[in-house]
Amino acid sequence: MSVLIVGSVALDSVATPYGKVDDALGGSATYFSLAARLFSPDVNVVAVIGDDFPEKHTQMLLGKGINLDGLMTSEGKTFRWAGKYSEDFGDPETLDTQLNVFETFAPVLPEHYCGSSFVFLGNIDPTLQRQVVKQVKSPMLVAADTMNFWIEGKLDELKALLSDIDMLLINALEVRMLSGNKSLLAGARDVLKMGPEILIVKRGESGVMVITEDDIFVLPAYPIEQVVDPTGAGDSFAGAFMGYLASRGKIDFVELKRAVVAGSIVASMNVEGFSVHKLAELTIDDIAARMKEFREITSFTVPEFDL
Amino acid sequence: MSVLIVGSVALDSVATPYGKVDDALGGSATYFSLAARLFSPDVNVVAVIGDDFPEKHTQMLLGKGINLDGLMTSEGKTFRWAGKYSEDFGDPETLDTQLNVFETFAPVLPEHYCGSSFVFLGNIDPTLQRQVVKQVKSPMLVAADTMNFWIEGKLDELKALLSDIDMLLINALEVRMLSGNKSLLAGARDVLKMGPEILIVKRGESGVMVITEDDIFVLPAYPIEQVVDPTGAGDSFAGAFMGYLASRGKIDFVELKRAVVAGSIVASMNVEGFSVHKLAELTIDDIAARMKEFREITSFTVPEFDL
Repeated sequence: MSVLIVGSVALDSVATPYGKVDDALGGSATYFSLAARLFSPDVNVVAVIGDDFPEKHTQMLLGKGINLDGLMTSEGKTFRWAGKYSEDFGDPETLDTQLNVFETFAPVLPEHYCGSSFVFLGNIDPTLQRQVVKQVKSPMLVAADTMNFWIEGKLDELKALLSDIDMLLINALEVRMLSGNKSLLAGARDVLKMGPEILIVKRGESGVMVITEDDIFVLPAYPIEQVVDPTGAGDSFAGAFMGYLASRGKIDFVELKRAVVAGSIVASMNVEGFSVHKLAELTIDDIAARMKEFREITSFTVPEFDL
Repeated sequence: MSVLIVGSVALDSVATPYGKVDDALGGSATYFSLAARLFSPDVNVVAVIGDDFPEKHTQMLLGKGINLDGLMTSEGKTFRWAGKYSEDFGDPETLDTQLNVFETFAPVLPEHYCGSSFVFLGNIDPTLQRQVVKQVKSPMLVAADTMNFWIEGKLDELKALLSDIDMLLINALEVRMLSGNKSLLAGARDVLKMGPEILIVKRGESGVMVITEDDIFVLPAYPIEQVVDPTGAGDSFAGAFMGYLASRGKIDFVELKRAVVAGSIVASMNVEGFSVHKLAELTIDDIAARMKEFREITSFTVPEFDL
């Protein structure tokens, strides 16, 4: 089944204790689509680039089988972000943000995208996210990302969006902001009451939590040897998650858990390299091997107690 | 098999956003022994109290079947600690520490303790920890806790201790301090090279990691509804861990993983109440039920990929 991502394509300048890159390929739609195509052959991108965007990047994405019919080129410069991560790899220090052509981005779906089954609304203005929802016809799953900026600045629009979607993907701080509840579990239940049936809580080095009305799943982070560049962790997670589900064509809790594992594994590999360098080279065999290893290092049995 | 704990018995005054207690029963040996006795009937305590220590506390511990032959009473006041936790339940603010009789604590094991099979050295001066190791005869497992204070102030003694023990239990920050390595996984391997065969890394809300030369196990934290008082989480973890292993009488990686799960579950229940209130009332049935539930909410299967 087909996957749709609406988000950003950017040129990122990132410095970490392990090196730096300048004007490297980035953006939520980029990470998402490169992760999703590992599982699903039919990935549709909606985003905007400037007329300065290097042709080699579009060629690379096309070469991976990603559909760029919805990638508009506008007059002006491509969205640019510059940031710096410290040794603890917490939130980066933003050194520069130039929205450029992204400032007037109004996502319009090519006609043949409107039947996409698995729709992901990257972290953009909830007003735009709602416009995308209106354009898709009978999707199987509509999921959205958001952030503190929209929770603080566009809460009414965001709440309206929550009624329109099936799944929300946010971090633990955002659960607390959105719910006003200090307990993560109670706060997550409050967010479910706002509309989405599935909530995925990204917890960084604490892993991921999935919660629905009836089920819960907690997964630790895969223990990687060395984070090199955390940029795109959330978007590569989301791409693998949605791509995996699209490849199965069904959504039940067994498949949701596997999708979360697939997402975690792809994100863990993405952050082992700068920009999309590692992500672009991954194969499904690499992922399958690490998923099996992850199961081995997390599984346990419960003894019978006869005291 | 028998369990030995050498540590503190204290009177704690703790304030959290959910309430406060004054001069409540605390100390590493208290939490440890109350957790260990849930699994193992033979738990031996070595600690010191002052002549002001309330008789009701010793009666409660004796009533739980804990052996207090090694609990010395010295002239003076019992060790007291006062602290305050904020809403995020990070490290507490220490308001007051009165070592009192604990200042001159020199652990001497009663003769019938010296054959204990599972020995836990609570977080005290590594010089004293080493004195305990010299007193035990052919233990099956010797484990120790330590902290940043000893890593900074008594590194040589601590390193000597590491050659004497089988297992070390520390947090992620302490792994980094001890190894000088920023990567948790690489740092953990460095610590293993210092002597212990098993390293348990306590990661708070990120869960627990166990690492040996050949194996690794990562477990998320059990998602509790509401932390009320985190005091004693590490010590109740350690007590349940050692008590569980003692009840099985063998140490292999299957049992180590189960011991970590038992420890996590008991710690998760302990922090749902102030002081030892919840811990003292637990039964093995409560624990077995939550262990099973924990397995359900953490287990997943890996699909076959046929792309």
